[in-house]
Amino acid sequence: MTTDAARLTADLIRCASVTPEDDGALDVVENVLSGAGFSCVRVDRGGVRNLFARWGDKGHPRTFGFNGHTDVVPVGDVAAWTMPPFGAQEKDGFLYGRGATDMKSGVAAFAAAAVDFVTQTPPDGAVILTITGDEEGESIDGTTALLDYMETAGERMSACLVGEPTCPDHMGEMMKIGRRGSMSAWFTVTGVQGHSAYPHRAKNPLPAMARLMDRLASHELDQGTDHFDASTLAVVTIDTGNTATNVIPAQCRAAVNIRFNDLHSGASLTAWMQGEADRVAEAFGVTVEMKVKISGESFLTPPGALSDLVAAAVEAETGLAPVLSTSGGTSDARFVKDHCPVVEFGLVGRTMHQVDERVEIAQIHQLKAIYGRILRDYFS
Amino acid sequence: MTTDAARLTADLIRCASVTPEDDGALDVVENVLSGAGFSCVRVDRGGVRNLFARWGDKGHPRTFGFNGHTDVVPVGDVAAWTMPPFGAQEKDGFLYGRGATDMKSGVAAFAAAAVDFVTQTPPDGAVILTITGDEEGESIDGTTALLDYMETAGERMSACLVGEPTCPDHMGEMMKIGRRGSMSAWFTVTGVQGHSAYPHRAKNPLPAMARLMDRLASHELDQGTDHFDASTLAVVTIDTGNTATNVIPAQCRAAVNIRFNDLHSGASLTAWMQGEADRVAEAFGVTVEMKVKISGESFLTPPGALSDLVAAAVEAETGLAPVLSTSGGTSDARFVKDHCPVVEFGLVGRTMHQVDERVEIAQIHQLKAIYGRILRDYFS
Repeated sequence: MTTDAARLTADLIRCASVTPEDDGALDVVENVLSGAGFSCVRVDRGGVRNLFARWGDKGHPRTFGFNGHTDVVPVGDVAAWTMPPFGAQEKDGFLYGRGATDMKSGVAAFAAAAVDFVTQTPPDGAVILTITGDEEGESIDGTTALLDYMETAGERMSACLVGEPTCPDHMGEMMKIGRRGSMSAWFTVTGVQGHSAYPHRAKNPLPAMARLMDRLASHELDQGTDHFDASTLAVVTIDTGNTATNVIPAQCRAAVNIRFNDLHSGASLTAWMQGEADRVAEAFGVTVEMKVKISGESFLTPPGALSDLVAAAVEAETGLAPVLSTSGGTSDARFVKDHCPVVEFGLVGRTMHQVDERVEIAQIHQLKAIYGRILRDYFS
Repeated sequence: MTTDAARLTADLIRCASVTPEDDGALDVVENVLSGAGFSCVRVDRGGVRNLFARWGDKGHPRTFGFNGHTDVVPVGDVAAWTMPPFGAQEKDGFLYGRGATDMKSGVAAFAAAAVDFVTQTPPDGAVILTITGDEEGESIDGTTALLDYMETAGERMSACLVGEPTCPDHMGEMMKIGRRGSMSAWFTVTGVQGHSAYPHRAKNPLPAMARLMDRLASHELDQGTDHFDASTLAVVTIDTGNTATNVIPAQCRAAVNIRFNDLHSGASLTAWMQGEADRVAEAFGVTVEMKVKISGESFLTPPGALSDLVAAAVEAETGLAPVLSTSGGTSDARFVKDHCPVVEFGLVGRTMHQVDERVEIAQIHQLKAIYGRILRDYFS
């Protein structure tokens, strides 16, 4: 008997697990894993539910790990959906619902693959699954809490695969061996309010802000590296809120978002922006405040044994040799990378976060097959 | 018997003539003028009340004119006033109320001076008063309507004095022989919305806007001319309204306000800004829309007979030789200048448009004396 990953996906979709709600999603996974001999530990923290599960001996030097999340983003405009967002309804070979691709199908596929693998061909080693309920939210008490627990409990993975969607259009075409870093910065330029007819009596913050944003946006951060695209900076907003043309406002705010490669760090970019802000402040005689939030540093698991293993399994099952990419946003791999080598592979993510999010049922089975092959090859 | 300009000011303050309301203000002036033999014509247009008054023969080659307004700006936060804004209460030698300085006292002073002059020493010539109820508003149906009427009726002034407040701190220190032009421009930069992680798939309007505003704000328009300060451009707002750091917005808006001297015109500045907008649009691959509003062109009544006459009268009454200035915002002199030579002189405007607007009562009498001396000297 094998575990039906599509059915498991449907069971998970029926749980309305919008971060930080769980609505029974982790119970669904835990039930399947417990039945196969996994020892399960709930690692709840800060109102978030997380599940740690291990089959095999603790501390075994060959321990393969999977990481994923059961929480989902909000459904948005329910009226725009043609299917109930938590209904898990099937149509034309697709399974519909929030989280169908991001990433309840991924969790279902690796849980089903792991259960079948350890029950049918018990390996000399261990398999660990870390599943969180806080990946779409602040990510403070999710995978981080699980890794903290593992550190304390002496649990360790030798390698880990994060099951996030990684393929832009076709199953198998892309896997990820790292991620760019991500950070945002908020700027407040403060001058002195005044009348437009007497600008010398005021200190207009807007020319300073325009100069600062021009300098940040027009600076080439780099031209990319071996495994990374060029870093990018996007000015995402500039706001003043002054409706009177005869008034010079006192303050202006702006924000930028940076996706950066391994030539930079959150700290180096902070220092660069602070330098630009200070120069503009001095040149224009205004004050410039900067606040930064580093969502994640860039990281890379250099191509090697782990990526070769995953790529070979993907090619064997799909016929496509996956590109080793570092594109896209952040994922919990940014936390796992401090614990062990980590790569990401999952299905086509086209409808993630959209209305009528859906997954092709055949792809769930294919993904399970890939994950199963990875386990077999890893322990062979 | 002489006409009490302070009492006339108080009568005017008691009319709640916030543009476009009149509340009897022009009746107050007309009653005084009619009694002295002025022929009065109401020139109402577009819901605005205006008063034309002439003493003496129509078309006389020596016709001195005064121009002013009885409308006032809103009182703002009434609770912040320590005196009723339309109460005309006296305290410590000051008369309080909206319009006390801008410019009911000016209208009262020149009306009183004109009445006393024509009744006590009837000149060989004519005196024309044009008083509008729409200077603080759109100024479309105010002095313009009066000048249109005069054109049609064959009425003509040889020279005109606008009685707006012109002195920054001390009575007599400044008169105006022209005004800078004023215009505003609104810019909308439109690109293509997208995700901050994939800026190459979007077209961010913000760097283009930052560049455009930087270029406009850092351009030196000129260094001033013989009678004008340097022209100024103030960026008054830049707005986007995007709160999501992972979203590149589709559009950004901004506005600038320009005060310009006689080296420029509304048309030349429009062409310059359009050129900058076009260059930025091309460089960034975005569209830039520009909308302009020219509130008034710059103008100058070159120093000569009229300014000498007024300056001499001011110095005789105050002991101060007034600076011939072109500073400040716009006034209705921008319309009068197409009709005849025009200068501006009035009292200290420090509290204009503020709460507890007030005028020193002694200054009203002094202003009337100056206006009376100007009339005597003009017709002597």
